[in-house]
Amino acid sequence: MKALDKIQAAIRRKGADAFLVTQPENRRYLSGYKATDLSIAESSGALLVPRRGTPLLLTDSRYQLQAEKEAPGLEVVLVKTSLLKALKTILDRLEVRRLIFESHYFLHATAVKLLALGQKQGIEMMPQSGIVEKLRIRKTREEINDIQRSVLMNESVFQEVYAHLQPGQTEREVALAIETTMIRKGAEAPAFPSIVASGPNAALPHAKPTDRIIKKGETIIIDMGLKLAGYCSDMTRTVVLGAPDRKTEKIIRLVRRAQRAALKIIKAGILARDADSAAREVISAAGYGKNFGHGLGHGVGLAVHEPPSLNRIHRNKLQPGMIVTVEPGIYLPGWGGVRLENMVVVEEKGCTILNQDTTFLDI
Amino acid sequence: MKALDKIQAAIRRKGADAFLVTQPENRRYLSGYKATDLSIAESSGALLVPRRGTPLLLTDSRYQLQAEKEAPGLEVVLVKTSLLKALKTILDRLEVRRLIFESHYFLHATAVKLLALGQKQGIEMMPQSGIVEKLRIRKTREEINDIQRSVLMNESVFQEVYAHLQPGQTEREVALAIETTMIRKGAEAPAFPSIVASGPNAALPHAKPTDRIIKKGETIIIDMGLKLAGYCSDMTRTVVLGAPDRKTEKIIRLVRRAQRAALKIIKAGILARDADSAAREVISAAGYGKNFGHGLGHGVGLAVHEPPSLNRIHRNKLQPGMIVTVEPGIYLPGWGGVRLENMVVVEEKGCTILNQDTTFLDI
Repeated sequence: MKALDKIQAAIRRKGADAFLVTQPENRRYLSGYKATDLSIAESSGALLVPRRGTPLLLTDSRYQLQAEKEAPGLEVVLVKTSLLKALKTILDRLEVRRLIFESHYFLHATAVKLLALGQKQGIEMMPQSGIVEKLRIRKTREEINDIQRSVLMNESVFQEVYAHLQPGQTEREVALAIETTMIRKGAEAPAFPSIVASGPNAALPHAKPTDRIIKKGETIIIDMGLKLAGYCSDMTRTVVLGAPDRKTEKIIRLVRRAQRAALKIIKAGILARDADSAAREVISAAGYGKNFGHGLGHGVGLAVHEPPSLNRIHRNKLQPGMIVTVEPGIYLPGWGGVRLENMVVVEEKGCTILNQDTTFLDI
Repeated sequence: MKALDKIQAAIRRKGADAFLVTQPENRRYLSGYKATDLSIAESSGALLVPRRGTPLLLTDSRYQLQAEKEAPGLEVVLVKTSLLKALKTILDRLEVRRLIFESHYFLHATAVKLLALGQKQGIEMMPQSGIVEKLRIRKTREEINDIQRSVLMNESVFQEVYAHLQPGQTEREVALAIETTMIRKGAEAPAFPSIVASGPNAALPHAKPTDRIIKKGETIIIDMGLKLAGYCSDMTRTVVLGAPDRKTEKIIRLVRRAQRAALKIIKAGILARDADSAAREVISAAGYGKNFGHGLGHGVGLAVHEPPSLNRIHRNKLQPGMIVTVEPGIYLPGWGGVRLENMVVVEEKGCTILNQDTTFLDI
């Protein structure tokens, strides 16, 4: 529980007595408790970390057995009516005078009640953002192994679906095959709704799969990821059924060149936006600058989108142990699009690519 | 757009100039825009409803085309960097002096920034909860038809999967078959992760499907729902492969009797908790009171869980046009469980059951 030790040290450093963790991935990171939340309004529990000693998991009867099984080091506290009422008793028992809560994952209406409780009980409520996220941004060796396994399972799903990909299938059918294969292979869940975008639909970077029938010769963007042991993978391949024409070949090679330019310079110490520039310059030099409308990549871990962001704006330095996507793309309205996405681990002297699939190199 | 008219009247009544709608189902209800949010931190747009005239949808480039297509009556405003920055310009243009925001679906950290913006620009920010939900609670004839279609599609999925249900399948396989069949039949998505809980697992009201192999003779709880045209269905059946023993038969009949007792009294004007009591008394009289740990039901609409709650606590009166689940259950640790869930429309003189499936009657 090294992460927990670090968080408890941070709580003491901030002069607080306890920290209420409501963000689901932060909760899992610190406790091992795996339940997911249907939405922020239907939480499966809040973790209360005191400055020293055993954390408490506040949850209701539906999750009690699961919590006890998955987080044996925690004290499971049953919430009968509302989190606020349960908190009142516990904060009293633990003699909490200053409580940190996660401002970036806490509903305003609940915060109003929490602040009122603080007023009444003489507890200072301290809104904070990103404390646990800051720890999560650099992955441990163990986490890197978990993410590597997630990436390889995702690739095996892709390869199985790609082997059966045929003109005449609809985007929705292919997306469904992807998600079914994920579950069959033992993934916890898809990490996000899979994107299968063919022909002109591929010009929308975040297209939802439609009933459009896939044809020969057009670009098909497949963007997919799964969760395994909590950790996400995220990969994009652009494939063509039959022989691609010269324009398609040219764009695919250009996007691949942009990706390689970024991979070449990514290492600890460079600015996030410089990684983005390396890829963007290749695409701009070929005249497609305005057709690469999104950032180069993002962090991946327990969440499929997490810090750091690799884009034109962010100036933070890359650090060893960060895991990021490298996903340049070119989108041409009416024609289609090409995106290639791999995941890499940032290291002192360069980066290690977690992907092994070479499908896009063979086009 | 009658709902929109009512909301604009409410905005004027509250003395506000505009209403920022961030809750995803409220946004869809008022605009027709169908995008879903990955999470509260990854929104696909916010709806700004002025006291009169055309609402605006603030979204980013990923969703622009979809928004223009699905909500042609709206002005789509592109958010370039952040919602707050875009808002600043628009509130100025619309001369908004008092803005309502949805306190129950707004992050505290964002609210802090919104309130600061208000301070700076001289705009009063008015946190409110449940304005749109209050409208959504009574369904129109059109909505009832949509929900009826969702219920019937859900039943046809259940019947197809049930016809192939066999000892030797795992809970996860069955859950996967359910969700695949939903998508194949044209559902937008499952309304929630399907529950397939067999044998002792059925004693947990919210069990996640496991790799447990289903056996003859035990109770299998299947709780499933889908989204169609935005509207949810939610149904539970408890089935037994092979002949149930006498105890199982007894419990199933008891739960059905409890359900019928509630169905008999549900109509406009009764208290939500009286519907709950009607079912609970039947179960308690048979000595299983403490094995029915959850409430009798909940509202269903664009969200699978929405007001009203039918449980021991809520005193609100049922109103015509509410659609609620009626789902008593008995859970015996170590043995298993039985739950039966139908959806009904509350009417002046009684209620109409939306379900047609009679599987549980045949056991």
